[in-house]
Parts: sequence; structure tokens; C-alpha cells
Amino acid sequence: MFIDELEFDDRGLIPAVVCDHETNEVLMVAYMNEEAVRQTVETGRATFYSRSRQKMWVKGETSGHTQDVKWIRLDCDGDTLMLGVEQTGGACHLGYRSCFFRELRDGQWHMIAEKVFDPDAVY
Amino acid sequence: MFIDELEFDDRGLIPAVVCDHETNEVLMVAYMNEEAVRQTVETGRATFYSRSRQKMWVKGETSGHTQDVKWIRLDCDGDTLMLGVEQTGGACHLGYRSCFFRELRDGQWHMIAEKVFDPDAVY
Repeated sequence: MFIDELEFDDRGLIPAVVCDHETNEVLMVAYMNEEAVRQTVETGRATFYSRSRQKMWVKGETSGHTQDVKWIRLDCDGDTLMLGVEQTGGACHLGYRSCFFRELRDGQWHMIAEKVFDPDAVY
Repeated sequence: MFIDELEFDDRGLIPAVVCDHETNEVLMVAYMNEEAVRQTVETGRATFYSRSRQKMWVKGETSGHTQDVKWIRLDCDGDTLMLGVEQTGGACHLGYRSCFFRELRDGQWHMIAEKVFDPDAVY
């Protein structure tokens, strides 16, 4: 079984790098437990495990900003997944398309993106 | 200080997604401690912390397959870094450009890449 190749950590989790399936733009990193991996594969909707809330969550279940999974890749050590997705709206709960909207310049973090939605309107 | 924005985990580590600085192709995911972050910023060479060997390592110090860091980004929660790099050779110790050389198809992992170097020759 494909799931046997995965190396979950001591919390039973594996990180997943989520990127745009066409452009490779990295949108976010989240964590999955075994059930979240299975559900993602079965439904084609990105599903993660929230470490803070300690429960599974379907990305976009509140915001509508779902992720349709086009492909799933695994790294050499089997301890990191990648999801290629079609992102509806933005991946970041702060309103940005990508969670990586800050870049280091001259020792400080600078904003490098504009919001694509108003988080107050969707959460 | 930029380092104060980083949320290191209970092991003192933060994951870093390493991608090609131009194409966004994800090459690998590795972990950094605070010293590895500082050294990466100061030297411009990607430097990580090995969880298995419990020590810092400069990517490519053995293989010559170094990563020149062109930009560093931080996600919304401050708990994941991204490095945009110029990769010499391949990032994967098994000889592939990217560690993500397997893709899930019909319930099995399939190879989707060719080796770009012979690992026996460089390690």
C-alpha cells in the first residue's frame, strides 16, 4: 500500500508542501495524519490535521477556498509529501494567495504580495 | 531582529522548503536551527540541521551540490521558511534534481524523474 511508504513523525504526522499544480508556486505547508492522507486521496480535496485544534480539517470548509488535488508526490526519505493543487481563492487565512508573503531584505521581513480576498468577509 | 519572527518547534527547529529561485520547482525540505538560519543568511549558502546526525551541515559540503540562496521567505504563522536557491547539480542524495521524484498513481508510487548525477560517484 502507498501509505506504508510514508514516514510519520512521533506525533503521527507528515508535513505536506502544497503548491499550484501548474506553476509550482508554493502556497502553504500543513500537516497530515494517516486518516487525512487517505481522505485526501479518496476525495481529491486537500485535508489536513490541525496541530493546534487537534482535529482533521478540509481546507476551505469555512472559507470556500478549497484545494482540488491534481497530484501527490513523496520525497526520497518518505517523510514529506507534496500536493499539486488547483487553489480556489487564496490559501492563506490572512487573505493572501500564498502563506509565504514575506521576504527577508536587509535583515527585515518585507511584504511581497497583495491580498486576494478580505479575510474578515470569509471567516 | 528578523530571527525573532521565527517560531521554532519544541526541538528548536523550523522546516525550510527549498525551491529553484526562478522556476519555483520544489527541490527538498530540510530543517534549520537558529544557528543554521543565521549562517545561511550570513554566507548565502543553504545550511541545515540534521535531525539524525544532530549537527549542522552545509548543503553540498560533501557532494559539491551547493545551494546559493537568492531569497528567503517566511509564512504567515512564522513556522516555515522557504529558500529560493540556485542549485548546483541535484538536491537529492539519491541523484535526482528534486527529492520529490515519486508520484502517486492508481495507489502506487511511480518514478517521475531521471537521475542527474551518479550518487556513488559523489558521496
